[in-house]
Amino acid sequence: MGTTDYTLYLVTDRNLMSCDTVEESVRQAAEGGVTVVQLREKQATSREFYEQAVRVKAVTDAYGIPLIINDRVDIAMAVDAAGVHLGQKDMPCSIARRILGPDKIIGVSAALPEEALQAKADGASYLGVGAVFQTGTKQDTRPVTKERLAQIRAAVDLPIVIIGGVKQSNVLEFAGMGINGAAVVSAIVAQPDIKKAAEEMRRILQKF
Amino acid sequence: MGTTDYTLYLVTDRNLMSCDTVEESVRQAAEGGVTVVQLREKQATSREFYEQAVRVKAVTDAYGIPLIINDRVDIAMAVDAAGVHLGQKDMPCSIARRILGPDKIIGVSAALPEEALQAKADGASYLGVGAVFQTGTKQDTRPVTKERLAQIRAAVDLPIVIIGGVKQSNVLEFAGMGINGAAVVSAIVAQPDIKKAAEEMRRILQKF
Repeated sequence: MGTTDYTLYLVTDRNLMSCDTVEESVRQAAEGGVTVVQLREKQATSREFYEQAVRVKAVTDAYGIPLIINDRVDIAMAVDAAGVHLGQKDMPCSIARRILGPDKIIGVSAALPEEALQAKADGASYLGVGAVFQTGTKQDTRPVTKERLAQIRAAVDLPIVIIGGVKQSNVLEFAGMGINGAAVVSAIVAQPDIKKAAEEMRRILQKF
Repeated sequence: MGTTDYTLYLVTDRNLMSCDTVEESVRQAAEGGVTVVQLREKQATSREFYEQAVRVKAVTDAYGIPLIINDRVDIAMAVDAAGVHLGQKDMPCSIARRILGPDKIIGVSAALPEEALQAKADGASYLGVGAVFQTGTKQDTRPVTKERLAQIRAAVDLPIVIIGGVKQSNVLEFAGMGINGAAVVSAIVAQPDIKKAAEEMRRILQKF
């Protein structure tokens, strides 16, 4: 999956979004230039998650953007998503890779070089590294310093997306480190003008 | 999957069990003669659910009993379980059948003849019908009367397992109705002697 553009990686959040539906937040963000969308639904029943994924997939397909499903390999298969993102509390990457086959994207959350190396060994396609800043949108994050990020970057050759409190005003603190993209939640979906927020972030990331 | 013996269908419950681990509750119940085991984990992370499923699968394999995973098609695939059980809030049966292929067991919860017919059309292998009695182990159940059960039995030719408050003292109220088995939670796993409770239920179900 070397051709995936991880530059501006949107993570959905139904509790923070400034519009009425998750699919509408994704549509506006796609208009603004996000390059990947991860659908995250932590409270939904499986049926709700599946139905939400169907609606979001229609949007990402229309914009030609890969859709990544958080945690749930079965939901990803159900909607033929581009892949899944797995946290350290989700299914092991090696098992997900066996189920999904070689062609699907599998992202893994990593906060330590050894987790990054394990993910690589287990067949991960990219790493989500963070939390690089404090974040209010996720409770169970671990802090990742610039030094730690550099260690992870040096340890593995997988694409790296930074995550955790990333916004327009702070993302360039990580410029020039060989990072492939930035994952953003509230700095896009919680903004009054989602499209404009995505456009601005995309413009800033040109200097990344 | 016409050869599956649904006679005594154990559903796990980590909050009610009288022993220390889910796999130990399953082992004791298997000693007592349960014919199917459904692993239900409503609070677990995906990683915990997966790891629990690995441990229970080792037990069910040792006893030659099919293991059914509640809700999570991906966990079922991860441990090569015999199949999944889907409630009305889980993934649609038709989608799960497409993902799992023709050979896996897919059970569907049904409380109405139309749900039973839909499940049959969607490729279900068996039906879980209930709640036939009031139950404390599940909040979102709908009551199924004897008359309703007879309607469902007449509507579809799939194996039917009754569920919901079933215990040794009441299960024979549904004898002679062409029901294929009884699903039991607390009447087995919450008993001080799990093996003995399963044996007694198995003996009673000979008159089913």
